[in-house]
Amino acid sequence: MTARLTLTPLPGMPAVAPGDDLAALHLAAAERAGVRFRDGALVVCQKVFSKAEGRLVDLSTVEPSWEALALAREFAAFGKDARQIEVVLRETKRIVRKGHGVLICETHHGFVCANAGVDLSNAPADDVAVLLPVDPDASARRLRRELLARGAEPPLAVVMTDTFGRPWREGLVDVSIGSAGIAPVEDLRGSADLRGRELVVTTQATTDALAAAAGLLMQKDSGIPAVWVEGLAIRGDGGLPDLLRDASTDLFR
Amino acid sequence: MTARLTLTPLPGMPAVAPGDDLAALHLAAAERAGVRFRDGALVVCQKVFSKAEGRLVDLSTVEPSWEALALAREFAAFGKDARQIEVVLRETKRIVRKGHGVLICETHHGFVCANAGVDLSNAPADDVAVLLPVDPDASARRLRRELLARGAEPPLAVVMTDTFGRPWREGLVDVSIGSAGIAPVEDLRGSADLRGRELVVTTQATTDALAAAAGLLMQKDSGIPAVWVEGLAIRGDGGLPDLLRDASTDLFR
Repeated sequence: MTARLTLTPLPGMPAVAPGDDLAALHLAAAERAGVRFRDGALVVCQKVFSKAEGRLVDLSTVEPSWEALALAREFAAFGKDARQIEVVLRETKRIVRKGHGVLICETHHGFVCANAGVDLSNAPADDVAVLLPVDPDASARRLRRELLARGAEPPLAVVMTDTFGRPWREGLVDVSIGSAGIAPVEDLRGSADLRGRELVVTTQATTDALAAAAGLLMQKDSGIPAVWVEGLAIRGDGGLPDLLRDASTDLFR
Repeated sequence: MTARLTLTPLPGMPAVAPGDDLAALHLAAAERAGVRFRDGALVVCQKVFSKAEGRLVDLSTVEPSWEALALAREFAAFGKDARQIEVVLRETKRIVRKGHGVLICETHHGFVCANAGVDLSNAPADDVAVLLPVDPDASARRLRRELLARGAEPPLAVVMTDTFGRPWREGLVDVSIGSAGIAPVEDLRGSADLRGRELVVTTQATTDALAAAAGLLMQKDSGIPAVWVEGLAIRGDGGLPDLLRDASTDLFR
């Protein structure tokens, strides 16, 4: 019989500041919640990593480029700050779409999302923008390594999440933007369905599903930046290159 | 303190046939799993509804149109059956993209997905295609009503899921294609983040997140077509019109 899946919120984490010891914070939160990091996935909101890594930009230090000023004029009806747009452009490889006051950007990592993942809400001070980590997989691997060094045990996955919109569908869901100790996409090819026919549906985006599940407990105003997931077989390894679709097979570039 | 989220798989459901009593099947599965349908969400794979509703097409009865024959020729390298393509076209309002042997279609419901949601795997016999329900919200509402009439208690959500691909990202995730007794998209506008700033991220696609979470237990070969989710506040009501983005605000039409 397949086991239950249990998601335990890890509340009560303090506001994270640059240089903070994330492993210590999460181990303390786990102890408070009565869980142990072993045979499961620790799903953590991106902002925790970004703040610990100092990925913050004080908007008062930002000089908008002509392109940012032009976009701010174009989006005047939406009250966009040109300095904010400038920060978004610096994180952007390519603007995929623009409209309704929103820039859909491909980031330097290869994510396609609104405003290149730059966020002003929950920032540690007014007029501070929070950027995505430079290398989210490396950030996840570092936290995993430090957790294992201090008493956590494998199999252990660490998944970093952010909240993205989607084409065609309303509302936002959390997705994986970095991971360690787990295959982001599980290949089910070769396994057969109940009648023995070769499977048509072949690959499961496991870390994205974990992110969406944990997101149900991480609503922005709840103060829950991390969730511990148990009951799932933690398999494989990999990172963003497995999760981000290659341009040559993408029908939506 | 926020409660845990618990997902209990409901295994051991028999193969569903046209006319089967889904409420009875799910109530029996819940009893075997030791759960009670009250204050939670029952997440059920689309195929269960489609088969009970007889949404099956025997391909031997299908006469391909000239358009299906042309697409089969175009996709010759991928070994596509023209009758299968014909069934897909009948379910399609508009072909959004085509390539790599795949048709990305907008269905008559408004979903954008591969092959208009038509599936051959897990079909009850060879050369039978399984179509999506005609009105998935109505199917979910019917099951919910019958469960409540036979001992289940509100708050009770029913969510119907299917497995979709996504632009830009590898792998598939389960999404909601119909629901009852829950708001598919939760509006968080007006709630404030931890520092009192108005939220920028405003709407959560709750039923899609529930679908993705349950999908972790529903891998296609596991024989688990339904999952019971507890620990989430079941709020609001609504249906597909709330979840499917209006063309006027969609940057990806």
